[in-house]
Amino acid sequence: MKLTILGCYSATPRALTNTTSQVLEINNHMFLIDCGEGTQVQLRKHKIKFNRIKHIFISHLHGDHFFGLVGLISTFRLLTREQDLHVYGPKGIKEIITLQMKLADSWTNYKLIFHELISEKSELIFEDDDVEVFTIPLKHRVYTNGFLFKEKEGERKIDINAVEESHIDVAYFRKLKQGFDVENEKGVLIKNEDVTFSPNKPKSYAFCSDTVYNESMVPVIKNVDVLYHESTFLDKHENLADSTKHSTAKQAANIAKQANAGTLILGHYSSRYDDLNDFKLEAQTIFKNVLLAEDGKEFDFD
Amino acid sequence: MKLTILGCYSATPRALTNTTSQVLEINNHMFLIDCGEGTQVQLRKHKIKFNRIKHIFISHLHGDHFFGLVGLISTFRLLTREQDLHVYGPKGIKEIITLQMKLADSWTNYKLIFHELISEKSELIFEDDDVEVFTIPLKHRVYTNGFLFKEKEGERKIDINAVEESHIDVAYFRKLKQGFDVENEKGVLIKNEDVTFSPNKPKSYAFCSDTVYNESMVPVIKNVDVLYHESTFLDKHENLADSTKHSTAKQAANIAKQANAGTLILGHYSSRYDDLNDFKLEAQTIFKNVLLAEDGKEFDFD
Repeated sequence: MKLTILGCYSATPRALTNTTSQVLEINNHMFLIDCGEGTQVQLRKHKIKFNRIKHIFISHLHGDHFFGLVGLISTFRLLTREQDLHVYGPKGIKEIITLQMKLADSWTNYKLIFHELISEKSELIFEDDDVEVFTIPLKHRVYTNGFLFKEKEGERKIDINAVEESHIDVAYFRKLKQGFDVENEKGVLIKNEDVTFSPNKPKSYAFCSDTVYNESMVPVIKNVDVLYHESTFLDKHENLADSTKHSTAKQAANIAKQANAGTLILGHYSSRYDDLNDFKLEAQTIFKNVLLAEDGKEFDFD
Repeated sequence: MKLTILGCYSATPRALTNTTSQVLEINNHMFLIDCGEGTQVQLRKHKIKFNRIKHIFISHLHGDHFFGLVGLISTFRLLTREQDLHVYGPKGIKEIITLQMKLADSWTNYKLIFHELISEKSELIFEDDDVEVFTIPLKHRVYTNGFLFKEKEGERKIDINAVEESHIDVAYFRKLKQGFDVENEKGVLIKNEDVTFSPNKPKSYAFCSDTVYNESMVPVIKNVDVLYHESTFLDKHENLADSTKHSTAKQAANIAKQANAGTLILGHYSSRYDDLNDFKLEAQTIFKNVLLAEDGKEFDFD
């Protein structure tokens, strides 16, 4: 599981900082999460292949989280993309994009599928053999969801030496990977656990931005391996966080602690602060394992 | 009159090139012309004060000419802008912007005035004491206008030595600047031209992008001082220019020649070409005074 931060600042793109967007590589998927203005340029700078992106998740319809979406969709068209693109986001996102396509008389040559979200409860919005994605209802000035990405338990791994010693025919490997006991060439039943290794522990990632301090998300993200939680402000501006429906670093850490997260990544910083390390120090008074998002930073969780 | 190119490439923003946007300073106005994705960052990079921009002109609703508009409008709001902003562009532009403001529940705190264009004929869309702006109907895949910016003739300039010698009271200076003859302190009528200098010759700038080769614009831009004309392609790709409703460098030069323009600036290059100088060389076979737009380049025409 690998996370690339394309942008992690709030409000507006600037010469050296970008608004929210990130790419999560998980079980061979490449999910784009939020898409602030300039995201397509950030993708190019980080040499992320456009055609690996098949699913885009938009948290909410504030500009710093989605003004780059229409441009990315348009660029996919210009690059003669053929494969489907799925966009998950609040109701209204389809109207915004299609209105612009209509007025530009520029419809995509690929299939563009919108999954508009309206639920106030966590729901499963994507699932295949490898991954599940759930919404995380957040509390912000407009309808907002975070997203929980969960690897599914993988197949068991063959212990090559053990299967040879146990004289198991290769035809049974498929069943072994699925966890079944099998008979060997002599008709003896071999226990699965004697000839296979456990799969890697499935990993999970929760993206929570933007939101005011909101304990109701804790049950949804309980025991998540990596939690990205917005920290627009420091504790000294807690009032401002409350009134603008954002969080402080301390509040983010409190959520991480209650959720028993493995790692907390902070981001969505207000541009008023000079030293990002203050966010880390503040959060670490509550929760130890804190990392700071920075534009262009890659986190490898394998 | 000063022109700053913020972006001059076609299709999509890339790591090192920007889509169309430029700033024209003319008679104390600062007009923003087109607004591709990332324009607000380009404005910051070039240290152009946001609050000097009061009028934005959008040629057409293809993304490379306006996907940065909603972000710029939104950033003006976040910066607590108070003064009015006028946006001129094709019908539909208001719906695109207001829909996004509605869904983000983020209305501007300043007055945002849309001037939606539908005419197929050149029309005066802005005028004050200093400047006039006319549309230039272009032919592209969607409804498109170029814009003609014309300085008005300034006031005559007082020849201080001459007015002193002629014993003209200072109370008459206002009338002298307006071109009137006046009486001196002895009641003698003094001819205006004897005590004033002619004002600077008014300058004009025509922005023509995007368009297929289109001689019908020539009468509108006749004798323009500076013509920016798109040259997406070189002559060897003329068929492609025709089919996509764009122009070649040679065609741009032909328009400049017929219009008797002072200077031709080329731009809106396709990314397929490595050497921009090929555009200049090709245009110069038809029209001598050719300049190349480049991102960040400033042209001073004073």
